[in-house]
Parts: sequence; structure tokens; C-alpha cells
Amino acid sequence: MTTQKDLFNSVKEQTLLSQISALSGWDALTGMPKDSGHFRAEIDGYLAEKLFQVSTGDNRKNILTDLEKDSASLDELGQLVLRKARKDFDMTGNIPEQDFVDFQKTLSEAQDFWAQAREANAYKIYQPYLEKIIGYLQRFIPLWRKDEKTPYDVLLNQYEPGLTVAKLDTIFDQVKSGITTLRKKIAENESIVDSSFLSRRVTKEQQRTYAMDAAQRLGYNLDKGRLDDTIHPFMEALNRDDARITTRWDENNFQMAVLGILHEAGHGLFEQNVDSKYDDLRSVLPISMSIHESQSLFNEVMIGRSKEFWVVEYPKLQSIVAPTLNDISFDQFYQGWLKTEATFIRTEADPLTYPLHIIIRYEIEKAIFNDHIDVADLPALWNKKYKEYLDLDVPDDLTGILQDIHWAGGSFGYFPSYALGHLYAAQFRATMTKTLDFKNIFESGDYSPIFEWRKSHIWQYGGAVDPNEILEQATGEALNPQYWLDFVTRLYSYYN
Amino acid sequence: MTTQKDLFNSVKEQTLLSQISALSGWDALTGMPKDSGHFRAEIDGYLAEKLFQVSTGDNRKNILTDLEKDSASLDELGQLVLRKARKDFDMTGNIPEQDFVDFQKTLSEAQDFWAQAREANAYKIYQPYLEKIIGYLQRFIPLWRKDEKTPYDVLLNQYEPGLTVAKLDTIFDQVKSGITTLRKKIAENESIVDSSFLSRRVTKEQQRTYAMDAAQRLGYNLDKGRLDDTIHPFMEALNRDDARITTRWDENNFQMAVLGILHEAGHGLFEQNVDSKYDDLRSVLPISMSIHESQSLFNEVMIGRSKEFWVVEYPKLQSIVAPTLNDISFDQFYQGWLKTEATFIRTEADPLTYPLHIIIRYEIEKAIFNDHIDVADLPALWNKKYKEYLDLDVPDDLTGILQDIHWAGGSFGYFPSYALGHLYAAQFRATMTKTLDFKNIFESGDYSPIFEWRKSHIWQYGGAVDPNEILEQATGEALNPQYWLDFVTRLYSYYN
Repeated sequence: MTTQKDLFNSVKEQTLLSQISALSGWDALTGMPKDSGHFRAEIDGYLAEKLFQVSTGDNRKNILTDLEKDSASLDELGQLVLRKARKDFDMTGNIPEQDFVDFQKTLSEAQDFWAQAREANAYKIYQPYLEKIIGYLQRFIPLWRKDEKTPYDVLLNQYEPGLTVAKLDTIFDQVKSGITTLRKKIAENESIVDSSFLSRRVTKEQQRTYAMDAAQRLGYNLDKGRLDDTIHPFMEALNRDDARITTRWDENNFQMAVLGILHEAGHGLFEQNVDSKYDDLRSVLPISMSIHESQSLFNEVMIGRSKEFWVVEYPKLQSIVAPTLNDISFDQFYQGWLKTEATFIRTEADPLTYPLHIIIRYEIEKAIFNDHIDVADLPALWNKKYKEYLDLDVPDDLTGILQDIHWAGGSFGYFPSYALGHLYAAQFRATMTKTLDFKNIFESGDYSPIFEWRKSHIWQYGGAVDPNEILEQATGEALNPQYWLDFVTRLYSYYN
Repeated sequence: MTTQKDLFNSVKEQTLLSQISALSGWDALTGMPKDSGHFRAEIDGYLAEKLFQVSTGDNRKNILTDLEKDSASLDELGQLVLRKARKDFDMTGNIPEQDFVDFQKTLSEAQDFWAQAREANAYKIYQPYLEKIIGYLQRFIPLWRKDEKTPYDVLLNQYEPGLTVAKLDTIFDQVKSGITTLRKKIAENESIVDSSFLSRRVTKEQQRTYAMDAAQRLGYNLDKGRLDDTIHPFMEALNRDDARITTRWDENNFQMAVLGILHEAGHGLFEQNVDSKYDDLRSVLPISMSIHESQSLFNEVMIGRSKEFWVVEYPKLQSIVAPTLNDISFDQFYQGWLKTEATFIRTEADPLTYPLHIIIRYEIEKAIFNDHIDVADLPALWNKKYKEYLDLDVPDDLTGILQDIHWAGGSFGYFPSYALGHLYAAQFRATMTKTLDFKNIFESGDYSPIFEWRKSHIWQYGGAVDPNEILEQATGEALNPQYWLDFVTRLYSYYN
């Protein structure tokens, strides 16, 4: 007789395999020897095959079918896991196994060739792999599709349940027009801000010391994490006691690593504080991208750009980099810190222009999957949109379409989550500030009330509760982009 | 019908799983977050279970049985793989699966507690895990035993085919008496050598720069490897294009990392240069410990202690660490470099006293498995032998019995391979110098003739040829400890 224990054992095996895959993925990006990509592709292909078998094989199928007949025998967690495992089953179970395995191998290779294309500053090296990935997804979409209106809706849905092109078009229109209005106002009123101190040389060691101290003050636990160097920063969690972050360094731009580390540590915080009862079940209870991103952005923007944080933190930073910033007053610093300016690179964008980078990617992805644009034409489309929205002339592929690893990893429909993350983060903040005085908290030196609020209202649930539910439970309201527009308007009022 | 292809596919799966295990093992020792040991133990247990199933399950059993009936259908490589896979099968297949899995988990935990015991300088923290490991091995030995005379012979045999206590006692007696005679002679004739320059401060970066340059001149390929920091240095090869090394640093003892890196790079060289035809079959063709060690020691001792190497390399070292060694002449340097002195730590021992450290471990292991000494008494026995052979009073566990990770990894019977490695290395060198002029080669700046000799006579065979065969093919003679005694006598004649 099939019991909840059988389901949990099967999901635990999937979780163990996912942890192994995560380790391999982390390693491939943090210093795996260059020549070994071909061996690693075989390892990753093998792991993907095993994962596929565990999550879609006959054993899982029988467990699901048996338990669905008798779901009253399961406790609440068991019923949740059953629903989620069924959803996964239907997602991958419809893809022929060989296709799935080949797709995983392609992703592994594509990430290698993306890195090589970056080195050569040549999209053409990467293009054939991107075409392959898109080709696979175009074949998979009809197998995944249920009642979604457009092919791209199918991809959006995978990252954010219920998200559609129709909804996003509306939200993004509101956000785009809000940003445009605000940017005009800033341009009109802007006093001349001198942010040249941001290019002063701060050593990697000084940056690391300050940023990791700050990340730990916000609760990131280094006994459950580590920091490495990569081209594109990320957080990879094997489990709640192993949530690793990475960063990129530029000794002439300390803001990048400081905010980048706060950002990735925000992701790490989430993973480190999920309730232990989900430990073995992580693989079918992944945390949604949007809510994950809301927590990295909470660190980076809601805290890392706020005045009340920097009033307290700036002297600490000054002291670590001394004497480099001794002559810069707090007001000069904070004005420079907020300086808004169109940038080529998404990860270097300020909080105001950031959503425009996302909207560009969103529109390109829509064009790929709904309008079947030729992959060879993507750099031109990319560059055209950067000109249109940000008034920037993209000089080359490295500065343009080669900047993100996401597509090489098969992640289409993922970018909008970053924008949703901004909106969620602002809505959480608006609720928190009703009961928590951020200014007093930072001044006290004990940042734990913020940590505790986030843990009890958000992190503990992991992926067991859908993001929109978490948002509504915590804030008493559905998603409302106005909180974000209000936040950035207030942030940049400092600038006028 | 079962074919060679079935066997090779099954062995390939075992090889893939071994690569994953190797990655996990490397990661656990190079910065895995401290709190995550319990999760990692589950992962390692799972991988061990899968490896056990692949190498001893019904599928493998049937393949072996079928092919053994019709071994003429296999090509030469197929027949070799069949023999080796059968040997593995008989080795692990006799152990109950649950025991095997539990043993692997225990090893994973023991390595954690070994590290914790080191931090606390307290053997007692580690002792229960060591007891468990020894307990498992004592239960396994009767299951492995064929015609071996003593229980410890069974363990020796696993690392070095045909090695026995009887043979080792003879070899080690010859070596021990040779060392004793030589040490007396050195003590009598020793001019007062000032090696205090070895404690001058050389930064980690300077050490890294010099040692990695030198390792690469000897052929270690960083596109197929990397260097990390660990407490106990090691080399871990996932595959021939991913042979990673680690080192320990002491800014007041640059000799340690320089020789340590040359040593580990010697292991890496071997792995990087195995013939690609064995790529998928590595798991049943592991390289024997003794021959592996002969190549690390070749780098470290046969080259890294030799005068002809340092005549050329010393100016390079001087220039990288300048001005730290500017006032030390070559003669002063080389005398200091060779300085022989009893040390507490095996990995810091000079080439002359090193075998005594091994002989101590050998005798303790013999006492554990053949004479059933109590595990609680090991530190006392350890300390007694260090007094007897090296005239050293071991002050604490950290300096004594806690220095090696090997036992925590279940490796008993392995240490003698280090001593055999010394003997093999000297015998290889004696043969090489008949046709290669080391002095000219180093002076030319092109060290490749040494690389090519080692590759064609040793490395290419990987684990496909037994060490004694490689030795005899390459040198025309069976193992003869006299080559090593001649080498160290000549080395230390410089000292008189």
C-alpha cells in the first residue's frame, strides 16, 4: 500500500539529486578548470537524466496515482507535496526523456560558449547555442500548454503562477510611464551631483570586508554560506545550511560589489531561514523567483539605497576604506550613491532605471516566442530598444546582449520576476514601516527586528506558499505597483 | 545478449558517479559552509549507495557472469575491464549494502569531527568516530579475506596488489637501518647549517606565484586544474581535464607550500596525462597509490630537492620574493633547503626522515588490526614511537595523532604506499638519468624531456597496468630499495 512516506522518500531522492546538481552548477561557474567542460556536460546530463527518472518515472507516477485516490490519508504537508509533485510531473513528464537529457546537455554547453563569446566579444559564437535552446523550448511549449493564451504565457507561468502577457503589459505600462515622468522631473530639477568619488580605488579586500560585514549585520550567516568570484553574481543554495553567494569586483567601482553582495545575501537569507520541516521536500517546493527576488532587492534597494541605513553605515564604510572617503560628507555620499543614470549593464543599473532593463528583455522574449523573430536579429533588436528607452548606443555585444547568463541557462520568462521582485519589496516595506521604525533600528545597531519580520512573514514559508498568498497575508493586499512608484518618488525627492 | 558495450556503459555510470563523489569530497574540504555537514553526509551516503548498486547490483553481476562465459568476445581493454570490475565486485559485493552505506556516512561525519578535534586540539572528540571506522573495517576484513596471512595484509593488498606485512617488514628494516646510519654520519660531519632564512616572511601571493610557475614548468596544466587552500593538502581528480590541487600556507615557512605544491602537482600531472581511452573506465582502473605517490614525490624530492633544479630555479625564486633572499647565496640556500631535522608533522618532514613517519604509522596500523590495541591508547603509542624513532616529545594531539586526515577517510593500509612511492621514484630517476641529463635540461629552460619520459613510461597507463609492471617495464628491474638509499646518501653528501 502506498503511503505518504513513499511520496516523501521519492521527493527526498529528488532533493538529494537537486543538491548535487546545484553543487555542480555552482562549481562550473566558480573556477572549474576550463578544459573540463565536456566532462562536466556528461555529468550534468547524467544528473538530469536521474532527476527526470525520479520525478517522472513509473515509481513516481504510481505513487501519485495511488495517493490521489486516497488523499485524505495524507496530512496537510503531504497534500501540498502531492499537488506540487503532480504539477512537476505534468511539466516534465510530457517531454520525451531523450529531449530532456539533450536539453540539459545543451544548457551546460551553452554556458561555456556564452563565456567564450564574452571573452571574444562576439555574439556569433553563442548564437547557435541560443538557437538550440529556443528551439527546444518552442518544441516543449505545446507539450506544457494548458489554457495559456500565448506561447510566452506558458513560460511566464512556470516562474510565476498565473502571470500573463496581458497582466504584465498593464503593470509594465504603469511602471514605464511612472519612471518616465519621474526621470523627466529629476532631469529638470537635478542639482549637479558629483558622484566621481564612486570611482575612487577601493581594494577588493576593503570591499569584501565592508560588504560582508554589512551582509552579516542584516543576518546573512557565513557558517551557512560562502562568497566566491564570478562573472555574473548569483546565489546557489544546496540546502538551508549551504546558501552560497558570488560577486564580481571592480576596484574602481565599489558600489557594484557592495550592492551586489547585499543583493545576493538577500537571496541567501531567504534560503537560510526556510522552516526545517521542508528540508527533504525542497525539490518540489522551490521558492518562486519573484518572491526570492523581492528579498534580494529588499536588501539591495529597500535597505541598501535608503537614507536611514546609510546614515549609520557610511561611517563604517569610511573607516574600512580610510582615508579614501574621508573628505566626502554624508550628504555628498548619499547623493552620489543614489545618482540615477542610464547604464548599459542591467546589474549596474540604479533602482529607478532597472525596470526598463527588464521591460526590454520582456519585450524581446515576447518577440522570440510569440512573434518568432530570428535569433540572428536579437542583437539589433536589443540595441534598438536600449536606444529607445534609455537613450544609449550599445557599442558591442559584451555591453549588450551578452551581459546576462540567463538565456544560456534556458531561463526565458524569468526576467519579469526581477521587476515583480521590486514591486513586492516596496509593498512589504510599506507594511513593515507601519510597525517598525527603520531609523531607530539602524541607529540601535541591532538590525534583528527587520530580520525577524522577514523571517516570520516571508522566509519561513519557503516555496510552500505561493508568492501572491505570502504577499496578501503579509500586507493585507494584492500586488499594487503604486507602492514601488511611491518609494522611488520619495527616494529621488532627496535629489531635488 | 550481453556485450562489451553493456560492461562499458555500466562502468561509465560508475565513473560518472565517482566524479560526482570526487567533486563533493573536494568541496567538503575546500570551503563548504561549516553548518552543512549533516546535509552533506546525506548526499555522500546517497552517492555511495548508488555507487554500490552500480558496481555490485544485479545488472553488474549479470554482465560479469555473462561475459566471463564468453570472454573471447572482448577486446584486450574489455578483458582488462572485466577482470578489474570482477575484483571490485568481489571486494564490495561481499559487504551488506546497509553496512556499506552506513560506513560511507560515518566517513563523512568522521572528517567533520576530525576537523573539530583539530580545532579543539582534543583527540577525544575524534576517537569515537575512529573507533567506528576501525570497527567497520574489522567486520569487513573477514569478508574480503582470501589467502592473506594476517588481517592487516588484507588492507595492504587493497592499495598495493600482493603487498604483505612480511615483505614490508623486510623493506622497512633495510630502509630504517639505512636512514639511521646516514643520520648518524650527517650528525657527526654536519657543518653548522644556518637555515634561518627559511623562516623569513614570504607572502602567500609570492609563494603562490613562484610555486605555481614552477609546477607549470614541470607540466602541471592550470586549464585542467586549480589551486585551493585546505588544512591538509591533496589532489582530487574528477577526470583527466579536472585534476585539482590544494595547499596549506605559512608565511613564515615558504618551503612548506613550495614543496607541497610541487608534490600535489605531481599527482595532478599523472591524472592529466592518462590516455584518453580510459576516460569512461576510470572507476575500475584507479591508479595505485604507490605509483601515484612516486610521481608526487618525483616532483617534490627527485626534482624539488635536487641541486641541478635549484641552480636554475633559485634565481627565479629570489626575484619573485625580492629582496627577501637577496643576501642568501646559492650554497647557503641549498644547504638550508636540504637541512634534515626530525619534525612532528609528516608533511613537513625532509626526504630523509620522512620514511620514519610512515614506518610509525605502519606499525600502529599493524597494532590496530593484527594486535587489537585499544583506540583510546593510540595517542600514547603514537607519542612513544615518535620518541623512539625521531627523539621527539609530542606535545599535544594536534602535533601528534590528529595531523593526518587519512584514518578519518577510512584509509588504513594506505600509508606504506607513501614509502613505496619514495622507493619507486628513486628507481625511476636512476633509470632516467641513464639517458637524460637533468642538469642540461634544467639549464635549457625546457623541462619537457622529463615530462615526456614520465608521460610515455608511466602516466599514460593510468591504472590499466599494475605498478610493479610499470616499474619493471620502465626500469628493467623489480623494486630495489637500494636506489633510494643511494639517492639520499648522494643528496646528503652535499651536507658533509
